[in-house]
Amino acid sequence: MKLVQFMLNTGKIRLGVLEGENVIDLNSHENWVPIDLVRFLHEHEHAYEKLKEVALDPNNKCYSLNTVHLLPPIKKPDKILGIAQNYTDYCEESGLKRPLEPIVFSKFASTIIGPFDKIKHPTCSKAVDWEVELVVVIGKVARNVKAADAFNYVFGYTATQDLTAKDYMFQGKNYVLSKNMDHFCPIGPCIVTKDEISDPHNLSVKTWLNSDLKQDGNTRNLIFKIDQLIEYLSNVITLLPGDLICTGTPSGVGSNRNPPEFLRPGDLLTSEVEGVGKLRNRVVEYNKIT
Amino acid sequence: MKLVQFMLNTGKIRLGVLEGENVIDLNSHENWVPIDLVRFLHEHEHAYEKLKEVALDPNNKCYSLNTVHLLPPIKKPDKILGIAQNYTDYCEESGLKRPLEPIVFSKFASTIIGPFDKIKHPTCSKAVDWEVELVVVIGKVARNVKAADAFNYVFGYTATQDLTAKDYMFQGKNYVLSKNMDHFCPIGPCIVTKDEISDPHNLSVKTWLNSDLKQDGNTRNLIFKIDQLIEYLSNVITLLPGDLICTGTPSGVGSNRNPPEFLRPGDLLTSEVEGVGKLRNRVVEYNKIT
Repeated sequence: MKLVQFMLNTGKIRLGVLEGENVIDLNSHENWVPIDLVRFLHEHEHAYEKLKEVALDPNNKCYSLNTVHLLPPIKKPDKILGIAQNYTDYCEESGLKRPLEPIVFSKFASTIIGPFDKIKHPTCSKAVDWEVELVVVIGKVARNVKAADAFNYVFGYTATQDLTAKDYMFQGKNYVLSKNMDHFCPIGPCIVTKDEISDPHNLSVKTWLNSDLKQDGNTRNLIFKIDQLIEYLSNVITLLPGDLICTGTPSGVGSNRNPPEFLRPGDLLTSEVEGVGKLRNRVVEYNKIT
Repeated sequence: MKLVQFMLNTGKIRLGVLEGENVIDLNSHENWVPIDLVRFLHEHEHAYEKLKEVALDPNNKCYSLNTVHLLPPIKKPDKILGIAQNYTDYCEESGLKRPLEPIVFSKFASTIIGPFDKIKHPTCSKAVDWEVELVVVIGKVARNVKAADAFNYVFGYTATQDLTAKDYMFQGKNYVLSKNMDHFCPIGPCIVTKDEISDPHNLSVKTWLNSDLKQDGNTRNLIFKIDQLIEYLSNVITLLPGDLICTGTPSGVGSNRNPPEFLRPGDLLTSEVEGVGKLRNRVVEYNKIT
Protein backbone atom coordinates (compact mmCIF):
# COMPACT_ATOMS: atom_id res chain seq x y z
CA MET A 1 0.00 0.00 0.00
CA LYS A 2 1.06 3.54 -0.70
CA LEU A 3 -0.37 5.64 2.12
CA VAL A 4 -0.84 9.36 1.70
CA GLN A 5 -2.30 12.28 3.58
CA PHE A 6 -4.21 14.62 1.36
CA MET A 7 -6.35 17.72 1.47
CA LEU A 8 -9.62 18.06 -0.36
CA ASN A 9 -10.75 21.28 -2.04
CA THR A 10 -12.88 21.84 1.04
CA GLY A 11 -9.77 21.98 3.23
CA LYS A 12 -10.58 18.66 4.87
CA ILE A 13 -7.64 16.38 5.58
CA ARG A 14 -7.75 12.68 4.79
CA LEU A 15 -5.72 9.53 4.98
CA GLY A 16 -5.65 7.70 1.67
CA VAL A 17 -4.20 4.96 -0.47
CA LEU A 18 -2.57 5.83 -3.79
CA GLU A 19 -3.60 3.61 -6.67
CA GLY A 20 -2.13 4.82 -9.93
CA GLU A 21 -3.64 8.23 -10.60
CA ASN A 22 -6.32 7.85 -7.94
CA VAL A 23 -6.51 8.22 -4.19
CA ILE A 24 -8.84 6.06 -2.12
CA ASP A 25 -10.23 8.02 0.82
CA LEU A 26 -9.82 5.95 3.99
CA ASN A 27 -11.87 8.45 5.92
CA SER A 28 -14.98 7.99 3.78
CA HIS A 29 -16.90 6.47 6.66
CA GLU A 30 -17.93 8.22 9.80
CA ASN A 31 -16.59 5.59 12.16
CA TRP A 32 -13.15 5.70 10.63
CA VAL A 33 -11.02 8.68 11.52
CA PRO A 34 -7.35 7.79 11.82
CA ILE A 35 -6.29 10.99 10.11
CA ASP A 36 -3.12 11.20 12.17
CA LEU A 37 -0.98 8.27 11.10
CA VAL A 38 1.39 8.57 14.08
CA ARG A 39 -1.52 8.23 16.49
CA PHE A 40 -2.95 5.40 14.42
CA LEU A 41 0.32 3.48 14.57
CA HIS A 42 0.44 4.04 18.35
CA GLU A 43 -3.09 2.74 18.82
CA HIS A 44 -3.10 -0.22 16.45
CA GLU A 45 -0.69 -3.08 16.92
CA HIS A 46 -1.81 -4.48 13.56
CA ALA A 47 -1.98 -1.16 11.74
CA TYR A 48 -1.12 -2.58 8.34
CA GLU A 49 -3.86 -5.23 8.44
CA LYS A 50 -6.42 -2.72 9.67
CA LEU A 51 -5.56 -0.22 6.92
CA LYS A 52 -5.61 -2.96 4.30
CA GLU A 53 -9.07 -4.04 5.44
CA VAL A 54 -10.46 -0.52 5.26
CA ALA A 55 -8.82 0.15 1.89
CA LEU A 56 -10.68 -2.81 0.39
CA ASP A 57 -14.12 -1.45 1.29
CA PRO A 58 -15.88 -0.95 -2.07
CA ASN A 59 -17.84 1.99 -0.63
CA ASN A 60 -14.76 4.17 -0.12
CA LYS A 61 -14.77 7.44 -1.97
CA CYS A 62 -12.10 7.87 -4.60
CA TYR A 63 -10.48 11.04 -5.95
CA SER A 64 -8.37 11.77 -8.95
CA LEU A 65 -4.86 12.58 -7.77
CA ASN A 66 -4.81 15.88 -9.65
CA THR A 67 -7.83 17.18 -7.72
CA VAL A 68 -6.27 16.85 -4.25
CA HIS A 69 -3.21 18.31 -2.50
CA LEU A 70 -0.77 15.76 -1.12
CA LEU A 71 0.41 16.58 2.41
CA PRO A 72 3.37 15.08 4.24
CA PRO A 73 2.34 11.45 4.96
CA ILE A 74 3.54 11.87 8.56
CA LYS A 75 3.28 15.22 10.27
CA LYS A 76 4.26 14.99 13.92
CA PRO A 77 6.60 12.12 14.71
CA ASP A 78 8.27 12.17 18.11
CA LYS A 79 11.66 11.80 16.48
CA ILE A 80 13.31 12.40 13.15
CA LEU A 81 16.72 10.80 13.35
CA GLY A 82 19.31 11.38 10.66
CA ILE A 83 22.44 9.40 9.92
CA ALA A 84 25.40 11.36 8.57
CA GLN A 85 28.11 9.97 6.29
CA ASN A 86 26.30 6.71 5.70
CA TYR A 87 27.05 5.99 2.02
CA THR A 88 30.39 4.64 0.82
CA ASP A 89 30.25 6.89 -2.27
CA TYR A 90 29.44 9.96 -0.14
CA CYS A 91 32.40 9.31 2.16
CA GLU A 92 34.70 8.79 -0.82
CA GLU A 93 33.54 11.98 -2.50
CA SER A 94 33.90 13.92 0.76
CA GLY A 95 37.35 12.52 1.57
CA LEU A 96 35.99 11.12 4.84
CA LYS A 97 36.77 7.78 6.45
CA ARG A 98 33.88 5.36 6.89
CA PRO A 99 32.53 6.03 10.37
CA LEU A 100 32.99 3.23 12.90
CA GLU A 101 29.58 3.89 14.45
CA PRO A 102 26.49 5.64 13.07
CA ILE A 103 26.69 9.45 13.33
CA VAL A 104 23.27 10.47 14.58
CA PHE A 105 21.60 13.87 14.36
CA SER A 106 18.01 15.01 14.68
CA LYS A 107 15.39 17.20 13.03
CA PHE A 108 12.31 18.77 14.56
CA ALA A 109 8.84 17.71 13.43
CA SER A 110 8.09 21.34 12.60
CA THR A 111 10.60 21.22 9.73
CA ILE A 112 8.38 18.75 7.84
CA ILE A 113 6.67 19.93 4.64
CA GLY A 114 4.78 18.06 1.94
CA PRO A 115 6.13 16.44 -1.21
CA PHE A 116 5.12 19.36 -3.44
CA ASP A 117 5.35 22.23 -0.98
CA LYS A 118 7.64 25.19 -1.41
CA ILE A 119 10.95 25.33 0.43
CA LYS A 120 11.58 28.68 2.12
CA HIS A 121 15.14 29.69 1.45
CA PRO A 122 16.50 30.89 4.82
CA THR A 123 17.89 34.41 4.73
CA CYS A 124 20.65 33.47 7.20
CA SER A 125 22.32 30.81 5.00
CA LYS A 126 24.14 30.99 1.70
CA ALA A 127 24.84 27.28 1.50
CA VAL A 128 21.62 25.25 1.53
CA ASP A 129 22.43 21.82 0.13
CA TRP A 130 20.34 18.91 -1.17
CA GLU A 131 20.56 15.41 0.33
CA VAL A 132 18.03 12.88 -0.96
CA GLU A 133 17.41 9.98 1.43
CA LEU A 134 15.44 6.80 1.98
CA VAL A 135 13.48 7.15 5.23
CA VAL A 136 12.45 4.25 7.46
CA VAL A 137 9.08 4.63 9.22
CA ILE A 138 8.97 2.79 12.56
CA GLY A 139 5.75 0.86 13.21
CA LYS A 140 6.11 -0.43 16.76
CA VAL A 141 7.82 0.53 20.01
CA ALA A 142 11.40 -0.67 19.56
CA ARG A 143 13.78 -1.11 22.48
CA ASN A 144 16.90 -3.31 22.46
CA VAL A 145 15.94 -4.85 19.13
CA LYS A 146 18.41 -7.22 17.47
CA ALA A 147 19.26 -6.67 13.81
CA ALA A 148 17.82 -10.08 12.94
CA ASP A 149 14.44 -8.97 14.27
CA ALA A 150 14.63 -5.32 13.14
CA PHE A 151 12.34 -5.42 10.11
CA ASN A 152 9.48 -6.51 12.35
CA TYR A 153 9.57 -2.96 13.70
CA VAL A 154 9.48 -1.27 10.30
CA PHE A 155 6.11 -0.07 9.06
CA GLY A 156 7.29 1.21 5.72
CA TYR A 157 9.42 3.71 3.85
CA THR A 158 9.26 7.23 2.55
CA ALA A 159 11.66 9.71 0.92
CA THR A 160 13.10 13.01 2.08
CA GLN A 161 15.37 15.85 1.16
CA ASP A 162 17.44 16.26 4.29
CA LEU A 163 18.10 19.91 3.52
CA THR A 164 21.20 21.25 5.24
CA ALA A 165 22.67 24.72 5.66
CA LYS A 166 26.30 23.72 5.20
CA ASP A 167 27.53 27.09 6.47
CA TYR A 168 25.90 26.30 9.84
CA MET A 169 27.01 22.70 9.96
CA PHE A 170 30.03 23.12 12.14
CA GLN A 171 28.70 26.05 14.10
CA GLY A 172 28.99 24.93 17.70
CA LYS A 173 29.55 21.25 18.08
CA ASN A 174 26.72 19.73 16.19
CA TYR A 175 24.27 19.80 13.37
CA VAL A 176 21.10 21.09 15.03
CA LEU A 177 20.85 24.51 13.43
CA SER A 178 22.13 23.40 10.01
CA LYS A 179 19.49 20.68 9.79
CA ASN A 180 16.52 22.44 11.34
CA MET A 181 15.73 25.62 9.48
CA ASP A 182 12.07 26.06 8.58
CA HIS A 183 10.87 23.75 5.78
CA PHE A 184 14.08 21.70 5.79
CA CYS A 185 12.34 18.32 5.75
CA PRO A 186 10.12 17.68 2.71
CA ILE A 187 8.80 14.10 2.93
CA GLY A 188 6.64 11.88 0.80
CA PRO A 189 4.97 11.56 -1.57
CA CYS A 190 3.69 8.47 0.28
CA ILE A 191 4.64 5.90 2.84
CA VAL A 192 5.03 2.63 1.03
CA THR A 193 4.40 -0.29 3.35
CA LYS A 194 7.30 -2.69 3.71
CA ASP A 195 5.58 -5.58 1.92
CA GLU A 196 5.96 -3.65 -1.36
CA ILE A 197 9.73 -3.20 -1.07
CA SER A 198 11.41 -6.55 -1.64
CA ASP A 199 14.90 -5.26 -0.90
CA PRO A 200 15.31 -1.84 0.76
CA HIS A 201 19.04 -2.20 0.26
CA ASN A 202 18.75 -2.08 -3.50
CA LEU A 203 16.82 1.10 -4.28
CA SER A 204 17.88 3.92 -6.53
CA VAL A 205 17.91 7.39 -4.88
CA LYS A 206 18.14 10.49 -7.04
CA THR A 207 18.10 14.28 -6.93
CA TRP A 208 17.57 16.61 -9.87
CA LEU A 209 18.25 20.31 -9.56
CA ASN A 210 16.01 21.84 -12.23
CA SER A 211 16.70 19.45 -15.13
CA ASP A 212 20.17 18.27 -14.02
CA LEU A 213 20.62 14.91 -12.34
CA LYS A 214 22.80 15.70 -9.32
CA GLN A 215 22.60 12.60 -7.15
CA ASP A 216 22.30 9.10 -8.58
CA GLY A 217 22.90 6.64 -5.78
CA ASN A 218 21.66 3.28 -4.57
CA THR A 219 20.87 2.11 -1.05
CA ARG A 220 23.16 -0.88 -1.64
CA ASN A 221 25.96 1.55 -0.74
CA LEU A 222 24.60 2.26 2.75
CA ILE A 223 27.37 1.72 5.30
CA PHE A 224 25.09 0.98 8.25
CA LYS A 225 22.12 -0.98 6.92
CA ILE A 226 18.56 -0.46 8.14
CA ASP A 227 18.61 -3.45 10.48
CA GLN A 228 21.93 -2.37 11.97
CA LEU A 229 20.64 1.17 12.50
CA ILE A 230 17.54 -0.09 14.31
CA GLU A 231 19.67 -2.31 16.54
CA TYR A 232 22.13 0.49 17.25
CA LEU A 233 19.55 3.19 17.95
CA SER A 234 17.12 1.03 19.92
CA ASN A 235 19.93 -0.03 22.22
CA VAL A 236 20.27 3.59 23.34
CA ILE A 237 16.84 5.19 22.93
CA THR A 238 13.34 3.83 22.56
CA LEU A 239 12.00 4.18 19.01
CA LEU A 240 8.29 4.99 18.84
CA PRO A 241 5.63 4.33 16.19
CA GLY A 242 5.88 7.00 13.51
CA ASP A 243 9.53 7.82 14.22
CA LEU A 244 11.52 8.48 11.07
CA ILE A 245 15.08 7.35 10.42
CA CYS A 246 16.65 9.25 7.51
CA THR A 247 19.28 6.77 6.38
CA GLY A 248 21.82 9.13 4.83
CA THR A 249 22.58 10.57 1.42
CA PRO A 250 24.72 9.31 -1.47
CA SER A 251 27.35 11.33 -3.36
CA GLY A 252 26.48 14.27 -5.57
CA VAL A 253 25.64 16.89 -2.97
CA GLY A 254 26.29 20.51 -3.86
CA SER A 255 28.97 21.18 -1.25
CA ASN A 256 31.24 18.51 -2.75
CA ARG A 257 31.13 20.02 -6.24
CA ASN A 258 33.86 22.16 -7.72
CA PRO A 259 32.91 24.94 -7.46
CA PRO A 260 30.32 24.21 -4.74
CA GLU A 261 26.66 24.64 -5.74
CA PHE A 262 23.78 25.51 -3.48
CA LEU A 263 20.04 26.03 -3.73
CA ARG A 264 18.75 29.41 -4.84
CA PRO A 265 15.26 30.88 -4.90
CA GLY A 266 13.59 29.78 -8.13
CA ASP A 267 15.23 26.33 -8.24
CA LEU A 268 13.10 23.23 -8.60
CA LEU A 269 14.34 20.30 -6.53
CA THR A 270 13.14 16.85 -7.61
CA SER A 271 13.89 13.87 -5.42
CA GLU A 272 13.15 10.21 -6.00
CA VAL A 273 13.48 7.01 -4.05
CA GLU A 274 12.68 3.91 -6.09
CA GLY A 275 9.40 2.34 -5.01
CA VAL A 276 8.34 5.44 -3.07
CA GLY A 277 8.03 8.08 -5.77
CA LYS A 278 9.01 11.63 -6.47
CA LEU A 279 8.97 14.86 -4.47
CA ARG A 280 9.02 18.16 -6.31
CA ASN A 281 9.79 21.21 -4.20
CA ARG A 282 10.26 24.72 -5.52
CA VAL A 283 12.72 26.93 -3.62
CA VAL A 284 11.35 30.40 -2.87
CA GLU A 285 12.53 33.45 -0.98
CA TYR A 286 11.73 33.16 2.70
CA ASN A 287 9.27 35.99 2.88
CA LYS A 288 7.38 35.04 -0.27
CA ILE A 289 5.25 32.43 1.50
CA THR A 290 3.83 32.28 4.98
CA MET B 1 1.02 32.09 38.50
CA LYS B 2 2.62 28.70 38.99
CA LEU B 3 1.02 26.43 36.40
CA VAL B 4 1.06 22.67 36.85
CA GLN B 5 -0.31 19.61 35.18
CA PHE B 6 -1.56 17.06 37.65
CA MET B 7 -3.31 13.73 37.85
CA LEU B 8 -6.19 13.02 40.17
CA ASN B 9 -6.64 9.70 41.95
CA THR B 10 -9.15 8.87 39.25
CA GLY B 11 -6.42 9.07 36.60
CA LYS B 12 -7.87 12.26 35.14
CA ILE B 13 -5.37 14.86 33.99
CA ARG B 14 -5.80 18.54 34.82
CA LEU B 15 -4.21 21.91 34.36
CA GLY B 16 -3.86 23.76 37.63
CA VAL B 17 -2.42 26.66 39.55
CA LEU B 18 -0.20 26.03 42.57
CA GLU B 19 -1.04 28.14 45.60
CA GLY B 20 1.02 27.14 48.60
CA GLU B 21 0.05 23.57 49.45
CA ASN B 22 -3.02 23.60 47.23
CA VAL B 23 -3.73 23.17 43.54
CA ILE B 24 -6.60 25.04 41.88
CA ASP B 25 -8.17 22.90 39.16
CA LEU B 26 -8.50 24.98 35.98
CA ASN B 27 -10.53 22.21 34.37
CA SER B 28 -13.29 22.32 36.97
CA HIS B 29 -15.80 23.60 34.43
CA GLU B 30 -17.10 21.71 31.45
CA ASN B 31 -16.44 24.49 28.98
CA TRP B 32 -12.83 24.79 29.94
CA VAL B 33 -10.51 22.07 28.70
CA PRO B 34 -7.04 23.39 27.87
CA ILE B 35 -5.39 20.32 29.37
CA ASP B 36 -2.56 20.48 26.85
CA LEU B 37 -0.64 23.67 27.61
CA VAL B 38 1.27 23.62 24.30
CA ARG B 39 -1.98 23.59 22.36
CA PHE B 40 -3.42 26.24 24.63
CA LEU B 41 -0.46 28.55 24.02
CA HIS B 42 -0.87 27.96 20.27
CA GLU B 43 -4.54 28.83 20.36
CA HIS B 44 -4.54 31.82 22.71
CA GLU B 45 -2.58 34.91 21.94
CA HIS B 46 -3.36 36.22 25.44
CA ALA B 47 -2.85 32.92 27.21
CA TYR B 48 -1.66 34.45 30.46
CA GLU B 49 -4.66 36.74 30.80
CA LYS B 50 -7.08 33.93 29.97
CA LEU B 51 -5.51 31.58 32.52
CA LYS B 52 -5.50 34.31 35.16
CA GLU B 53 -9.18 34.97 34.55
CA VAL B 54 -10.11 31.31 34.91
CA ALA B 55 -7.89 30.87 37.98
CA LEU B 56 -9.86 33.58 39.79
CA ASP B 57 -13.20 31.81 39.39
CA PRO B 58 -14.36 31.11 42.98
CA ASN B 59 -16.15 27.98 41.81
CA ASN B 60 -12.95 26.18 40.82
CA LYS B 61 -12.27 22.94 42.61
CA CYS B 62 -9.20 22.87 44.79
CA TYR B 63 -7.05 19.92 45.86
CA SER B 64 -4.42 19.48 48.50
CA LEU B 65 -1.05 19.08 46.78
CA ASN B 66 -0.35 15.82 48.59
CA THR B 67 -3.43 14.16 47.13
CA VAL B 68 -2.46 14.65 43.49
CA HIS B 69 0.44 13.56 41.28
CA LEU B 70 2.33 16.37 39.56
CA LEU B 71 3.04 15.66 35.90
CA PRO B 72 5.48 17.51 33.65
CA PRO B 73 3.93 20.97 33.13
CA ILE B 74 4.61 20.66 29.39
CA LYS B 75 4.50 17.29 27.71
CA LYS B 76 4.88 17.60 23.95
CA PRO B 77 6.71 20.72 22.84
CA ASP B 78 7.84 20.84 19.22
CA LYS B 79 11.37 21.61 20.32
CA ILE B 80 13.56 21.24 23.35
CA LEU B 81 16.70 23.24 22.66
CA GLY B 82 19.71 22.98 24.91
CA ILE B 83 22.66 25.34 25.19
CA ALA B 84 25.99 23.77 26.06
CA GLN B 85 28.86 25.49 27.90
CA ASN B 86 26.77 28.52 28.81
CA TYR B 87 27.99 29.36 32.35
CA THR B 88 31.29 31.09 33.03
CA ASP B 89 31.89 28.88 36.08
CA TYR B 90 31.13 25.72 34.07
CA CYS B 91 33.60 26.69 31.35
CA GLU B 92 36.24 27.51 33.95
CA GLU B 93 35.75 24.21 35.77
CA SER B 94 35.84 22.30 32.47
CA GLY B 95 38.92 24.09 31.16
CA LEU B 96 36.93 25.30 28.16
CA LYS B 97 37.05 28.67 26.48
CA ARG B 98 33.88 30.73 26.48
CA PRO B 99 32.10 29.87 23.25
CA LEU B 100 31.82 32.68 20.70
CA GLU B 101 28.33 31.61 19.68
CA PRO B 102 25.71 29.52 21.51
CA ILE B 103 26.32 25.77 21.17
CA VAL B 104 22.89 24.33 20.46
CA PHE B 105 21.68 20.76 20.90
CA SER B 106 18.24 19.20 21.11
CA LYS B 107 16.20 16.73 23.12
CA PHE B 108 13.12 14.79 22.06
CA ALA B 109 9.76 15.44 23.72
CA SER B 110 9.59 11.75 24.61
CA THR B 111 12.47 12.21 27.08
CA ILE B 112 10.29 14.41 29.31
CA ILE B 113 9.25 13.07 32.70
CA GLY B 114 7.57 14.73 35.68
CA PRO B 115 9.19 16.52 38.61
CA PHE B 116 8.89 13.53 40.95
CA ASP B 117 9.07 10.67 38.45
CA LYS B 118 11.73 8.01 38.49
CA ILE B 119 14.72 8.25 36.18
CA LYS B 120 15.48 5.01 34.38
CA HIS B 121 19.20 4.42 34.49
CA PRO B 122 20.15 3.35 30.96
CA THR B 123 21.96 0.03 30.79
CA CYS B 124 24.17 1.27 27.94
CA SER B 125 25.83 4.12 29.88
CA LYS B 126 28.14 4.18 32.87
CA ALA B 127 28.43 7.96 32.99
CA VAL B 128 25.02 9.58 33.47
CA ASP B 129 25.62 13.10 34.77
CA TRP B 130 23.42 15.76 36.38
CA GLU B 131 22.99 19.25 34.91
CA VAL B 132 20.40 21.48 36.58
CA GLU B 133 19.09 24.25 34.34
CA LEU B 134 16.70 27.16 34.13
CA VAL B 135 14.31 26.56 31.22
CA VAL B 136 12.62 29.29 29.18
CA VAL B 137 9.09 28.51 27.96
CA ILE B 138 8.24 30.28 24.70
CA GLY B 139 4.76 31.79 24.56
CA LYS B 140 4.42 33.09 21.00
CA VAL B 141 5.72 32.32 17.52
CA ALA B 142 9.17 33.93 17.43
CA ARG B 143 11.01 34.64 14.19
CA ASN B 144 13.81 37.18 13.76
CA VAL B 145 13.19 38.63 17.20
CA LYS B 146 15.58 41.29 18.49
CA ALA B 147 17.05 40.89 21.98
CA ALA B 148 15.35 44.11 23.10
CA ASP B 149 11.98 42.57 22.28
CA ALA B 150 12.76 38.99 23.33
CA PHE B 151 10.96 38.85 26.69
CA ASN B 152 7.68 39.58 24.90
CA TYR B 153 7.99 36.04 23.52
CA VAL B 154 8.63 34.39 26.88
CA PHE B 155 5.63 32.81 28.61
CA GLY B 156 7.47 31.70 31.72
CA TYR B 157 10.13 29.50 33.22
CA THR B 158 10.59 25.99 34.51
CA ALA B 159 13.48 23.83 35.72
CA THR B 160 15.11 20.72 34.34
CA GLN B 161 17.82 18.20 34.87
CA ASP B 162 19.42 17.99 31.45
CA LEU B 163 20.63 14.44 32.07
CA THR B 164 23.56 13.48 29.89
CA ALA B 165 25.35 10.20 29.23
CA LYS B 166 28.86 11.63 29.13
CA ASP B 167 30.29 8.43 27.66
CA TYR B 168 28.07 8.97 24.58
CA MET B 169 28.72 12.67 24.35
CA PHE B 170 31.38 12.60 21.73
CA GLN B 171 30.15 9.53 19.93
CA GLY B 172 29.76 10.63 16.36
CA LYS B 173 29.81 14.36 15.93
CA ASN B 174 27.13 15.56 18.24
CA TYR B 175 25.17 15.20 21.40
CA VAL B 176 21.96 13.54 20.25
CA LEU B 177 22.36 10.12 21.83
CA SER B 178 24.00 11.40 25.02
CA LYS B 179 21.12 13.80 25.67
CA ASN B 180 18.18 11.68 24.59
CA MET B 181 18.07 8.45 26.51
CA ASP B 182 14.66 7.58 27.94
CA HIS B 183 13.64 9.76 30.93
CA PHE B 184 16.55 12.18 30.43
CA CYS B 185 14.44 15.32 30.77
CA PRO B 186 12.65 15.73 34.12
CA ILE B 187 10.90 19.11 34.14
CA GLY B 188 8.83 21.08 36.60
CA PRO B 189 7.52 21.23 39.20
CA CYS B 190 5.62 24.13 37.59
CA ILE B 191 5.85 26.77 34.93
CA VAL B 192 6.14 30.07 36.70
CA THR B 193 4.81 32.89 34.52
CA LYS B 194 7.32 35.61 33.74
CA ASP B 195 5.56 38.29 35.81
CA GLU B 196 6.66 36.44 38.96
CA ILE B 197 10.37 36.46 38.11
CA SER B 198 11.71 39.98 38.46
CA ASP B 199 15.18 39.10 37.18
CA PRO B 200 15.70 35.74 35.44
CA HIS B 201 19.43 36.54 35.37
CA ASN B 202 19.71 36.41 39.13
CA LEU B 203 18.32 33.04 40.16
CA SER B 204 20.04 30.39 42.20
CA VAL B 205 20.22 26.94 40.52
CA LYS B 206 21.16 23.90 42.60
CA THR B 207 21.55 20.14 42.48
CA TRP B 208 21.76 17.81 45.43
CA LEU B 209 22.81 14.19 45.00
CA ASN B 210 21.21 12.44 47.95
CA SER B 211 22.04 14.92 50.76
CA ASP B 212 25.14 16.49 49.16
CA LEU B 213 24.92 19.86 47.44
CA LYS B 214 26.70 19.31 44.11
CA GLN B 215 25.78 22.35 42.02
CA ASP B 216 25.30 25.80 43.50
CA GLY B 217 25.17 28.29 40.66
CA ASN B 218 23.38 31.45 39.70
CA THR B 219 21.93 32.49 36.35
CA ARG B 220 23.91 35.75 36.60
CA ASN B 221 26.80 33.65 35.26
CA LEU B 222 25.03 32.76 32.02
CA ILE B 223 27.29 33.59 29.08
CA PHE B 224 24.51 34.04 26.53
CA LYS B 225 21.58 35.62 28.31
CA ILE B 226 17.96 34.67 27.63
CA ASP B 227 17.30 37.63 25.34
CA GLN B 228 20.46 36.94 23.36
CA LEU B 229 19.52 33.28 23.00
CA ILE B 230 16.06 34.14 21.69
CA GLU B 231 17.54 36.56 19.17
CA TYR B 232 20.18 34.09 18.06
CA LEU B 233 17.86 31.09 17.75
CA SER B 234 14.92 32.93 16.20
CA ASN B 235 17.21 34.30 13.52
CA VAL B 236 17.80 30.73 12.32
CA ILE B 237 14.68 28.74 13.22
CA THR B 238 11.14 29.67 14.15
CA LEU B 239 10.41 29.20 17.84
CA LEU B 240 6.90 27.96 18.57
CA PRO B 241 4.61 28.33 21.59
CA GLY B 242 5.58 25.72 24.17
CA ASP B 243 9.15 25.34 22.91
CA LEU B 244 11.66 24.95 25.71
CA ILE B 245 15.12 26.50 25.83
CA CYS B 246 17.32 24.83 28.45
CA THR B 247 19.78 27.61 29.19
CA GLY B 248 22.79 25.59 30.32
CA THR B 249 24.22 24.27 33.57
CA PRO B 250 26.63 25.81 36.10
CA SER B 251 29.72 24.14 37.55
CA GLY B 252 29.58 21.13 39.85
CA VAL B 253 28.64 18.41 37.37
CA GLY B 254 29.85 14.88 38.12
CA SER B 255 32.15 14.52 35.14
CA ASN B 256 34.29 17.45 36.30
CA ARG B 257 34.92 15.98 39.75
CA ASN B 258 38.07 14.18 40.79
CA PRO B 259 37.43 11.31 40.64
CA PRO B 260 34.37 11.70 38.35
CA GLU B 261 31.01 10.84 39.90
CA PHE B 262 27.93 9.64 38.08
CA LEU B 263 24.37 8.68 38.91
CA ARG B 264 23.67 5.17 40.16
CA PRO B 265 20.42 3.32 40.74
CA GLY B 266 19.15 4.22 44.19
CA ASP B 267 20.36 7.83 44.09
CA LEU B 268 17.95 10.68 44.80
CA LEU B 269 18.51 13.71 42.60
CA THR B 270 17.09 17.00 43.88
CA SER B 271 17.13 20.05 41.62
CA GLU B 272 16.07 23.59 42.35
CA VAL B 273 15.70 26.79 40.40
CA GLU B 274 14.87 29.79 42.57
CA GLY B 275 11.30 30.94 42.00
CA VAL B 276 10.33 27.72 40.22
CA GLY B 277 10.74 25.09 42.89
CA LYS B 278 12.23 21.67 43.43
CA LEU B 279 12.26 18.45 41.43
CA ARG B 280 13.00 15.18 43.20
CA ASN B 281 13.80 12.25 40.97
CA ARG B 282 14.89 8.82 42.18
CA VAL B 283 17.26 6.92 39.90
CA VAL B 284 16.22 3.29 39.34
CA GLU B 285 17.48 0.39 37.27
CA TYR B 286 16.09 0.55 33.74
CA ASN B 287 13.96 -2.55 33.94
CA LYS B 288 12.50 -1.79 37.36
CA ILE B 289 9.84 0.54 35.96
CA THR B 290 7.88 0.48 32.74
